[in-house]
Amino acid sequence: MVGETVVTVVGNLTDDPEIRMTPSGDAVTHFTVASTPRAFDRQSNEWKDADTLFLRCSAWRQMAEHIARSLTRGTRVIVQGRLHQRAYETKEGEKRTVIELEATEIGPSLRYADATVSKTSRVGASGGTLFGTEPPAPKDTPRAPDGDKSTPEKSSTFPF
Amino acid sequence: MVGETVVTVVGNLTDDPEIRMTPSGDAVTHFTVASTPRAFDRQSNEWKDADTLFLRCSAWRQMAEHIARSLTRGTRVIVQGRLHQRAYETKEGEKRTVIELEATEIGPSLRYADATVSKTSRVGASGGTLFGTEPPAPKDTPRAPDGDKSTPEKSSTFPF
Amino acid sequence: MVGETVVTVVGNLTDDPEIRMTPSGDAVTHFTVASTPRAFDRQSNEWKDADTLFLRCSAWRQMAEHIARSLTRGTRVIVQGRLHQRAYETKEGEKRTVIELEATEIGPSLRYADATVSKTSRVGASGGTLFGTEPPAPKDTPRAPDGDKSTPEKSSTFPF
Amino acid sequence: MVGETVVTVVGNLTDDPEIRMTPSGDAVTHFTVASTPRAFDRQSNEWKDADTLFLRCSAWRQMAEHIARSLTRGTRVIVQGRLHQRAYETKEGEKRTVIELEATEIGPSLRYADATVSKTSRVGASGGTLFGTEPPAPKDTPRAPDGDKSTPEKSSTFPF
Repeated sequence: MVGETVVTVVGNLTDDPEIRMTPSGDAVTHFTVASTPRAFDRQSNEWKDADTLFLRCSAWRQMAEHIARSLTRGTRVIVQGRLHQRAYETKEGEKRTVIELEATEIGPSLRYADATVSKTSRVGASGGTLFGTEPPAPKDTPRAPDGDKSTPEKSSTFPF
Repeated sequence: MVGETVVTVVGNLTDDPEIRMTPSGDAVTHFTVASTPRAFDRQSNEWKDADTLFLRCSAWRQMAEHIARSLTRGTRVIVQGRLHQRAYETKEGEKRTVIELEATEIGPSLRYADATVSKTSRVGASGGTLFGTEPPAPKDTPRAPDGDKSTPEKSSTFPF
Repeated sequence: MVGETVVTVVGNLTDDPEIRMTPSGDAVTHFTVASTPRAFDRQSNEWKDADTLFLRCSAWRQMAEHIARSLTRGTRVIVQGRLHQRAYETKEGEKRTVIELEATEIGPSLRYADATVSKTSRVGASGGTLFGTEPPAPKDTPRAPDGDKSTPEKSSTFPF
Repeated sequence: MVGETVVTVVGNLTDDPEIRMTPSGDAVTHFTVASTPRAFDRQSNEWKDADTLFLRCSAWRQMAEHIARSLTRGTRVIVQGRLHQRAYETKEGEKRTVIELEATEIGPSLRYADATVSKTSRVGASGGTLFGTEPPAPKDTPRAPDGDKSTPEKSSTFPF
């Protein structure tokens, strides 16, 4: 896709990532990043926490599994993705929309932590994953999953 | 600072990060990220590599040490930082400028890899670092938001 | 502030900007940007519109007035700002949050249009504004870099 | 293209934009944006100018003409584009590379100025342009110009 609204957010996971399988067999992980800016307060001559932004994120396929295996509640992460709007219906039948981030890249921040990276095999890996076998690598797509494939089917449910 | 030119780059380290100490006792790490976009070629109906951008990066103090301990040549990373211009003089006395990235956040990408995160102690740590003792906390700079603080306590304005 | 979640969005205004005065005497303008990415459809071998993101934006003080005077429904704009979360209560007393953009810069896009720029006086202007007199300069905030100052005087570190 | 290094820069034009025609008949405009961040100095308790970033930019085709007609030396602009590396050879035969921005969107900033937008016809316009007739609209491309057309020739040098 071109012309997307891309954003990078830095913050901490509010909970362990939740992974599940879609009916079509793709892994998807959801998580929320809490990002707190710092504002300089001239009266106290100090930096202080400003309002926290909570951004709900999703990640797909192979990356979804790496996230579920690597990150936990509280981990500081850097995430890049595209903002998108999701429509859903409440139990009462009310229609709403919410802005979320579909992650295209994510890594644990090295600002306050070390990380040991273990590269997984890229194509045709089998076994050893959360779901027994790796979902098939997308064919003919850029390494960043393209919009059509990675956009989930519009559901009417709001699963969090 | 405000009004900086902030950029997020995703790519692979061209070499192991090089860490050194400045005369004032701060750790600084330099590394180069090679970032290769993908372009869709309509004639072959395939995605192909486009021209690679090589961006020289620096990182300071505690983060410099975490980078030097965690990343190696070839690691795919996601880096956020501010673009800045550095002037230098060649051996022949010619003045030149180069555009570089001063990293404010970096993490190993979880797109094709797992990572094990080990949080280091934040303040007043002694021993165990590359240089024996932790460099003094930077003065006059905001610290990044504290991970523990920004993890929400399920407040009433946090709807997920 | 530091550590904010900054985003740039490109799209069209869904309506004329709405300007009003806060009780404290500051001008604020609200508007919504509709941003539609394009996805390549391999079956039809064409680029097609993907889902539109509607992002609610606010802008303050002097910039709010320039926006209200310069932009109208349908204008294509480029906006940079910080994502923030706003909590509100519905008439039924239900608490909700919504993600919005507080604009720090905005301009009409020159992709499909020309623009004639008329610089307004910067400090101490009186008269000629939408509200008769200019609101007082914001305190405690950095001003944006001054245009005149940042125009270089062809110094030796400016190589072009 | 996907996976590009996208950046938004805000600053002032150091000179009037320079427009020219490529041998293949496309309009291209070059300009430099001077972007000066502001840093808070705790000793003087004031915000001060930090080092200026000078970023050389290019824009293509229809947008190139709108820029040449709309902007002048000193205009404050907001520009979004992709970072890319360009190789060139000095008069002495030395090979060098420079990082530049290929603009995908640009607009005059409304922070300190008003703007009057005059929409030009989008497709099949003839007459009234700087070069007499509009270059043909790119076919089958996303509205943002694609990489292949706008990317300069590849070089074989890697300067670090």
